[in-house]
Amino acid sequence: MTDLSPPRGSRDFLPQEKILRNSIVDTLRKTFEKYGFNPLETPALENFDVLSSKYAGGDEILKETYSLEDQGKRKLGLRYDLTVPLSRVFASQKLALPFKRYQIASVWRDGPIKAGRYREFTQCDVDVIGVASPKQEAELMALTRDSFKALGLKAVVKVNSRKLLNGLLDFAGVPESKRIAAILELDKLEKAGNPGVLAELEKLLGKSEAKTVLELFVEVEREKSLRVIEGMGLGKEGAEGIKELNEFFESLEMFGVSKDFVLFSPSLARGLNYYTGMVFEAFLVAGEDNVIRSSLAGGGRYDDMIGKFASSREKIPAVGISFGLDVISEILKEKSARLGVQTPYSVVKVLVVPFKNFSYGLSVTQELRGRGISAIVDLEGRGVSKNMDFANRQKIPFIVFCGEKEQNEGKVKLRDMLSGKEELVSLPSVLAKLA
Amino acid sequence: MTDLSPPRGSRDFLPQEKILRNSIVDTLRKTFEKYGFNPLETPALENFDVLSSKYAGGDEILKETYSLEDQGKRKLGLRYDLTVPLSRVFASQKLALPFKRYQIASVWRDGPIKAGRYREFTQCDVDVIGVASPKQEAELMALTRDSFKALGLKAVVKVNSRKLLNGLLDFAGVPESKRIAAILELDKLEKAGNPGVLAELEKLLGKSEAKTVLELFVEVEREKSLRVIEGMGLGKEGAEGIKELNEFFESLEMFGVSKDFVLFSPSLARGLNYYTGMVFEAFLVAGEDNVIRSSLAGGGRYDDMIGKFASSREKIPAVGISFGLDVISEILKEKSARLGVQTPYSVVKVLVVPFKNFSYGLSVTQELRGRGISAIVDLEGRGVSKNMDFANRQKIPFIVFCGEKEQNEGKVKLRDMLSGKEELVSLPSVLAKLA
Repeated sequence: MTDLSPPRGSRDFLPQEKILRNSIVDTLRKTFEKYGFNPLETPALENFDVLSSKYAGGDEILKETYSLEDQGKRKLGLRYDLTVPLSRVFASQKLALPFKRYQIASVWRDGPIKAGRYREFTQCDVDVIGVASPKQEAELMALTRDSFKALGLKAVVKVNSRKLLNGLLDFAGVPESKRIAAILELDKLEKAGNPGVLAELEKLLGKSEAKTVLELFVEVEREKSLRVIEGMGLGKEGAEGIKELNEFFESLEMFGVSKDFVLFSPSLARGLNYYTGMVFEAFLVAGEDNVIRSSLAGGGRYDDMIGKFASSREKIPAVGISFGLDVISEILKEKSARLGVQTPYSVVKVLVVPFKNFSYGLSVTQELRGRGISAIVDLEGRGVSKNMDFANRQKIPFIVFCGEKEQNEGKVKLRDMLSGKEELVSLPSVLAKLA
Repeated sequence: MTDLSPPRGSRDFLPQEKILRNSIVDTLRKTFEKYGFNPLETPALENFDVLSSKYAGGDEILKETYSLEDQGKRKLGLRYDLTVPLSRVFASQKLALPFKRYQIASVWRDGPIKAGRYREFTQCDVDVIGVASPKQEAELMALTRDSFKALGLKAVVKVNSRKLLNGLLDFAGVPESKRIAAILELDKLEKAGNPGVLAELEKLLGKSEAKTVLELFVEVEREKSLRVIEGMGLGKEGAEGIKELNEFFESLEMFGVSKDFVLFSPSLARGLNYYTGMVFEAFLVAGEDNVIRSSLAGGGRYDDMIGKFASSREKIPAVGISFGLDVISEILKEKSARLGVQTPYSVVKVLVVPFKNFSYGLSVTQELRGRGISAIVDLEGRGVSKNMDFANRQKIPFIVFCGEKEQNEGKVKLRDMLSGKEELVSLPSVLAKLA
C-alpha cells in the first residue's frame, strides 16, 4: 500500500493551520510593502551551478541541497535560501539602486530533522541592495519591530557586527585564517554553553589562546557595552565596526525604535560565512516562549556576495533579514492555546440550508457571497440535524434556514450556533449582521 | 562563468509582474473564500510512490515528472498537479464531508516548452469532495463567473459530460476498450481540425468507423443541442449524462448564471483520463484574445480517484476546476498594453527626501508608513536631481521633501511627479492626501 504521509521533514497544512499561515504572510506582506519593499518571485529550481557558486551559500549548505537532472541532463537543485536567487536576479538584470525586494517562498534543505526544523520550510525575506549606510540596518529594525507588533508577538533583536568580532579576535591574537571558524564556535555560546565552546576553541586555537578568547567574549558579553569595547583600543576593522554600531544606534532613535527592542550582543555571530558587517537575530521575549527556542528572524549585511555574482569589481552593498514563517506560526498557535483563544477553524461564516425550493436558498447564498460573506450551501438536502452537526464540527458560526414559510414572508431563519438563538429576519438585516 | 538565467522553462518575476500576479491571486483567493473554500498547503515534494500510483495522473504525466532521491535514498518527485496531493491528504485524514478546499501553488512538468507552456507554473485549484449532485458543478460555474468578473476578463466556459461522450461513442459502435483513446483524439477537434483527427481516428478504429464517429461529432457539435441528442435514444450511460447535464443547466439558473456564460460543447473531452462525469474548460471571449489561445481554466468531475487513494470500496465523489495563473497574468498584461493602461510598476507611493536634518525626514517617513502608505526614504543624502531621477525611473507618484525650512514651518514640500506641481503642506494633509 502506498504511504500516504508527506515526505519526511515536510508537512500538510490543513485549513486551520493554513488560515493562520496566510494571515501571517498577509501581515508581513503589508508591513514589508509599507516600507517600500517590492515583491519578487523566482523559480524553486535553480541551475545547480548557481547554488554551488563559490559566492553562494557555501559547502555546508550545499551538502543539504536537493539536486536532480532534467530530461536534457541539466543539473538542477532546489533553492536552499532566497538570497542566492536574489543575487542571481540582480546580477542578470539592470535594476535601479537602491533595490528593495521581499520574497516569501519555500526553501528546501535535506538536513537532519529536529523539533522546529523541516526539510521544506518558508522564508519571508526582505533585502536592500545598494545602501551602505548603517541607517539601512536601523530601518530594517523599525520594519522588524512593526512586523512583530502587527503579529502580536513580543520580540527583541540581538545585534552585533562581524567587523567588531574580527577586531576582538584580532585583539585576542587569533590569526585571520582561523577567524571564521572561531566565529562559528562563539555563535554557539548561548546554546552549547561555555565548556562546550571552550573545548572546540581549544581544538582550533590551542589551550591558552582558547581560554583568552573565551574570557574576552564572556566579559564583553557580560558588559554588553560599546563604550567599554571602545576603550580597549581595537585595530582598524574593530574601530570601523564600533563606528557603524554607533551610527546604527543613533539612527534607531530617529526611526523611533526603542532601545529595549534592540540589544547589543557582542558574541552574536550568525552561522553563515557571507556576512561582512552587522548581523541580527530576533528572539521571543522570555516569558512568552514556553516551547520553541529557535530564532524568529535573522539577517545581516553581505557586501561582497552580490558584486561577485555580477562579476563586477565593485562592491555592491546589501543587507537583509529573513522571518521564519514556520516558527512564527508555531509560536502563535502556542500562544492561542495558552490564552484559550481559538485560531479560526474555517473561513466559512454561514451555512445556508435550503428546503424543498432550492432556488430560494441558492439565491440567498449568492446574495451573501455578493456581499463578501463566506457562505456554503447544502446542495444535497441533508436535513436539519445533519446540517447542524456539520456546522458544529466545522465551527461555522451561523446557519441560515431558507424554508417555504421563510420564503413566503421574504425572510430567512438565522441561527447563532454559539448561543443557539434563532430569529426570523429579513435578508437585508442578515446581510448587515454578517458582513 | 555561471549562467545567470533561471532554468529552462522557468522564469523570474520582477516587481511589476509579481505585483500583477499577487493581485490575481488575491482576487481569486477572495472569490474562492466567498464560496466557502478553505485553503490547504501541501509540500512541493511528494513521495514518488504517490505520484506514480495507478490512481494518480497516469503514465503521460509521469514521464514529465521531476524525480530525485533524498540523502536517505528515498525516491521523491516534484508534484505535477494539486489534485493528487489533495487525494493523498484526504485519504490520510478524517475530514468531514463535503470538504471544500482551494490551493494556489507551483507545479512542475519537465515537458516540451512552447509559447505559454512552462516547466514551473502556478495552478489555482478549487475542489469539492463529497457532493455528487450536478448542482455542485453549477456552483463552480458561478464561482468561475465571479472570478473572471473580478479579474476584469470576459470569458465563457465550455461544458460537456464524459458519460455523454461514452454514450455517443457507444452509439457510433466504438468498443469500450477504445473509448479513452477516441475521446483524447476528439478533444483535439478544435486544435487539429477535422482531417487531422480523422487520420488519427482511422488508425484507431478503421476507415469507415472513423468516418461515422467524426460525422456524428461534427453534427452534434454543430447543433450543440441536448434535445437533439436526447432524441437519438442513447444507451444507459449516455442517458445518465443527458440527465446530469439537464440538472446542471437548471441549477445554473438558480445560481443566477447566465446561459451565455456556459456553452454546451458535445465534443469537449479534456486530456486527462481520470474524469468520470462533467468536464469544463474556460476560454477568453473572441475579440479579447489576440495572442494567447490556451484555456484560462479547466476541470471536471473525478468520482473514482479519491476513493481509490483511500483504498475504500465506496466511490467518493469529487469535482474541481483549476485556474492557470500564468495565462491569466499574460492576458491581463496584454489587455493593459492594448488599452494603454500601465499595470503598477512598484508598490511605492512616495519617496521621502530628507536634507541635513535626517531626523525630521525619517520621522515623516515613519508617520506615512504608520498610515499604511508605502514609502521609501533616501538614506544616503543623494541630492534633489538624483532623487527626482530615481522617482521617475521607478514611477513613484510623489516625492516629499523635508528640508530645514519645511521643518521650521512644521510642513513638507509635496511634489506630484506626474504634474510636476509642488506645494508646501502640513503633514496631516499629506497623510490625508496619500492614504
